[in-house]
Amino acid sequence: MKILIIGGGGVVGQKLGRALAARGVLRGRNINRITLADISTPADIADARIPVEAVRCDIADPASVAACVTADADVIYLLAAIVSAHAEEDFDAGMTINLMGTLNVLQRARALGTKPIVVFTSSIAVYGGEVPDPILDHTLLNPQTSYGAQKAMGELLLNDFSRKGFIDGRGLRLPTVSIRPGKPNRAASSFMSSILREPLNGQEAICPVDDDFPHYYLSPRKCVENLIKSGEIEEQSLGQNRCMMMPGRMWTIRQLIDAMTAVAGPEPAKLIRWEAQPEIQRIVKGWRFDLQPEKSLKLGLTADESFEDNVRYYLEDDKPSA
Amino acid sequence: MKILIIGGGGVVGQKLGRALAARGVLRGRNINRITLADISTPADIADARIPVEAVRCDIADPASVAACVTADADVIYLLAAIVSAHAEEDFDAGMTINLMGTLNVLQRARALGTKPIVVFTSSIAVYGGEVPDPILDHTLLNPQTSYGAQKAMGELLLNDFSRKGFIDGRGLRLPTVSIRPGKPNRAASSFMSSILREPLNGQEAICPVDDDFPHYYLSPRKCVENLIKSGEIEEQSLGQNRCMMMPGRMWTIRQLIDAMTAVAGPEPAKLIRWEAQPEIQRIVKGWRFDLQPEKSLKLGLTADESFEDNVRYYLEDDKPSA
Repeated sequence: MKILIIGGGGVVGQKLGRALAARGVLRGRNINRITLADISTPADIADARIPVEAVRCDIADPASVAACVTADADVIYLLAAIVSAHAEEDFDAGMTINLMGTLNVLQRARALGTKPIVVFTSSIAVYGGEVPDPILDHTLLNPQTSYGAQKAMGELLLNDFSRKGFIDGRGLRLPTVSIRPGKPNRAASSFMSSILREPLNGQEAICPVDDDFPHYYLSPRKCVENLIKSGEIEEQSLGQNRCMMMPGRMWTIRQLIDAMTAVAGPEPAKLIRWEAQPEIQRIVKGWRFDLQPEKSLKLGLTADESFEDNVRYYLEDDKPSA
Repeated sequence: MKILIIGGGGVVGQKLGRALAARGVLRGRNINRITLADISTPADIADARIPVEAVRCDIADPASVAACVTADADVIYLLAAIVSAHAEEDFDAGMTINLMGTLNVLQRARALGTKPIVVFTSSIAVYGGEVPDPILDHTLLNPQTSYGAQKAMGELLLNDFSRKGFIDGRGLRLPTVSIRPGKPNRAASSFMSSILREPLNGQEAICPVDDDFPHYYLSPRKCVENLIKSGEIEEQSLGQNRCMMMPGRMWTIRQLIDAMTAVAGPEPAKLIRWEAQPEIQRIVKGWRFDLQPEKSLKLGLTADESFEDNVRYYLEDDKPSA
């Protein structure tokens, strides 16, 4: 069993690589190799018990994709993307990576003729606009950002390539992953980790929305667990749409902060500065948050129990030592 | 007011060109020129009172698109497509024309900087799979053919290019157009016209499904009326999804035949041979037929009153003289 993680240099890709290396098994078979691929050569996995290689791959370039996506890959995780605010600012970059890059990977997988499993990360940013609450499995994808539109097109490609038998695809619409470790990124949702992570690390952070802003969240730890389960689901259980919401939970900003205070005491919350940012608000207020992920729950994927868990996971898994 | 019809050589494109030429006005402005573009230079419009030009355009080729889509086009109708059974047989042709061709036209329109109106024909083939009846405006697009998937991606592109202000797009999911004049084409729905058209012309036809097969129909005459109205809707009325069902009506094959008999007597129905075709059945039985086009009805688009009208329109507009 050989596994390729495209986007293996990102937060989720690195955690997924480490979790798979620690597990050593997928779909009941031993993992013989994990390849982490990204636009810059990803960090390696320290102390992995199985061979891990890190390679450079530009999914916008079919030759680079051909070199990286090879016939021995049994499972391909396709996580690489230009994130929301970045794709909104730079329309062409989003189209090149999120649409054409996804298409390049799928066309390469098709050309191999090996029907690999492809686990694709979509996003709840595919939801938006005039659709009634709650969002159900059969609700229209109505994105109000270029990122969301490009992810929704990726889902259609994944489904059609799967229906044709070119690949065995599975698409998961990720909730906002929080608390995301590391540095802020160019996702419009970046603050939804920063306002907790920076204070937990003793630093100031800016919250650009009001504290009653509701959104849909999942911890990195659960996200990785769900991505592994998504690779293990039997193909015949997926039905006529292989793309679904990954379970998460809806919380307001106030609930996030209260959970942080419950776990880590009152000091971190004092480091949050409130400063409205209209461009960020325009994007995130177009997103939907009242989601009912019936299908993925039925297939065994799970959400966090409480946001206090998310805070604890950050402290256990990610907080830099002083 | 200059109008470009890409796919102007097809049945709907030719009828639309003639209707616009006869009307002479769109959006309250005189039409100064109509350009019909297609992969083969389209037939001209006889006796048009306004200048009509017919040009060759291959939407798969950005240079050909650049030559055809020019800054003086106020309204662009994008009708060109590889149809359903053809796109199912030849996956690459469908991707090249239906996805990349649509993208080429939209990117060219964006590059012009003139924000033209773009009326895009999608299809009810975007619906399918596991979604509950009836299909509503906010129902998931869940295509079960490559044609449907490519049209659904075209809708996402049209919406996002519109949201960004690059174009003023409108997308209409066409019901099966029947009775379609001319020769059978490579749409899986082709028989839904042939079983009426050929008998009305005194020829035999094959029906590949049972007579209780239900489907969703619109006459060519109403389809063209609706496309003209779609170009006239004010942008602010379109909301956060510019793509919608075009109204049609659900009939069974038996109801189509009974309508033909009511209008043209008992002889034509005797020319239908019943011969099951599993590949056609596989495609058309994946389509959905119980549609509620609330949004487009509210915007003033209309369906036929009865299928007897469709039969009469064929006899009045299209039946070849003996």
